[in-house]
Amino acid sequence: MIEVCLLGTGGMMPLTNRFLTSLYCKCEGSGLLIDCGEATQIAIKKANLSVYDIDYILITHFHADHISGLPGLLLSIGNSEKKTKVTILGPKGIKEVVKSLRIIAPELPFPVEVVELDKKEGEIKLNVFNIQYYELKHKMICLGYNIILNRLPEFLKQKAIDNNIPIKYWNKLQHLIECEDEITGVKYTPDMVLGEERKGIKISYFTDTRPCDNILKWTRDTDLTICEGMYGNTDKSTNAKRYMHMTMVEACEIAKETKPKNLWLTHYSPAEVKPQVYEKELKKIYSKVKIAKDGEKIKLVFV
Amino acid sequence: MIEVCLLGTGGMMPLTNRFLTSLYCKCEGSGLLIDCGEATQIAIKKANLSVYDIDYILITHFHADHISGLPGLLLSIGNSEKKTKVTILGPKGIKEVVKSLRIIAPELPFPVEVVELDKKEGEIKLNVFNIQYYELKHKMICLGYNIILNRLPEFLKQKAIDNNIPIKYWNKLQHLIECEDEITGVKYTPDMVLGEERKGIKISYFTDTRPCDNILKWTRDTDLTICEGMYGNTDKSTNAKRYMHMTMVEACEIAKETKPKNLWLTHYSPAEVKPQVYEKELKKIYSKVKIAKDGEKIKLVFV
Repeated sequence: MIEVCLLGTGGMMPLTNRFLTSLYCKCEGSGLLIDCGEATQIAIKKANLSVYDIDYILITHFHADHISGLPGLLLSIGNSEKKTKVTILGPKGIKEVVKSLRIIAPELPFPVEVVELDKKEGEIKLNVFNIQYYELKHKMICLGYNIILNRLPEFLKQKAIDNNIPIKYWNKLQHLIECEDEITGVKYTPDMVLGEERKGIKISYFTDTRPCDNILKWTRDTDLTICEGMYGNTDKSTNAKRYMHMTMVEACEIAKETKPKNLWLTHYSPAEVKPQVYEKELKKIYSKVKIAKDGEKIKLVFV
Repeated sequence: MIEVCLLGTGGMMPLTNRFLTSLYCKCEGSGLLIDCGEATQIAIKKANLSVYDIDYILITHFHADHISGLPGLLLSIGNSEKKTKVTILGPKGIKEVVKSLRIIAPELPFPVEVVELDKKEGEIKLNVFNIQYYELKHKMICLGYNIILNRLPEFLKQKAIDNNIPIKYWNKLQHLIECEDEITGVKYTPDMVLGEERKGIKISYFTDTRPCDNILKWTRDTDLTICEGMYGNTDKSTNAKRYMHMTMVEACEIAKETKPKNLWLTHYSPAEVKPQVYEKELKKIYSKVKIAKDGEKIKLVFV
């Protein structure tokens, strides 16, 4: 099970009634944050979530509305008396950006590791979270992220018995660890006790970007897709192209192809005072679309 | 006349119901901000003030809760289509800190000047604002600021007539500009048309600091003193000493000596959930004390 909270839904600048776009996920006690604009630490408190739990901070790109809250958040995490490592990941350049911003947060009571995801796409395992990243199409290097929770195949007791597997190896085999009997030298493999592969949970998060092939390649069949819908007003499609963002209609057109179970739009332009007004029309393009609000929450479970 | 708004009253970190300590002043169309922690730009919007008007940003010191909002604020000022210069002033080191933080705000549509106040104390004129600065006693170099609006002496028409001053020089002399008649070579000085000196407006702002001699030297007889009262709970005086802050009682003891017309406390510890509970007792020490709230406003006029 993974708990997901979209802390804010704003783009460009925080407003009095709209925090900047940032995603908080928690699974098995470990917290993962994507993006951290100014005031994200307030949004975390407002959503009754804990800065202490954050182990991973993924940054999409270095525009201020996606990273300006980082030094303050790190200090607040420190103030929560966390002692364990926080890993910050982002596109090429993240090390320099974090170093620069930490001029006002030089001393922290926990270790910080900064990881540059310097390939165009790739995968990295962060504890329970399997992360996929891929380049988007923005004014600067910008990464989209998938969070994937793998699900183990079902443990089949009868299969284990039929295969004469000693009970003492069942637990390890169930968790994909191969075993060898110290005395007899007989090897046991996970497939001897497990059933078919099972679908895990997949969440895609991509902002800021124009529609591009990588979105179609990487974000199919998710349980939840969170993506930008910077402009609801269709008159703004020229702005969307100029500033390398997406309209809400474009986001829904993508979803028609990638088929997410849930589609949350976010990263609204400050000029979009009531983004909810577009929802009804957008549902005609993709019925599962939601104009997400600050603090939007969902729990996703294996089905 | 100067309009003053204490945008926030928090110390250390922004809370869901308390912005970080920052002061916004406006006089004759020009805005001056002291300190700019995370989310100060939201506090400005919440107080119905304009980021566009900000011409000067004074930073007391480089702890994150006093400067982390700077890159976001600069970008928001840019977004307001300001084209005129913004001057940022602060202690020695401000140039390096601003340069580092601007890694996420490298391009702005208005000029930025950064001024290091690298003496222990001094004065600088910023348009209508006369600024005095002085070192406080904190864990790092930290400056207290006075904002002074000078008041011209009264123009005495009868004195001008008695002194045979040609009318064409009256306006210049009234504004302290010496004049010389091109033909006769006769010199006219402002004292020939002006009355006695008149008291201007004085505002003192000092946080974060232990009580120190410089506070007594620089902050006497203000119209408004805004200073930290980090801890209301008297059990926390050890913490105040350890972390180089002041208790509310210490702030009031100082005021007994410096005699401000108004005393606003601010920069409350996040642990002080209801700082207002201390006001009644503090008034016994200094009757004009106020436990300021976010968005506290006052207009100060020449009297």
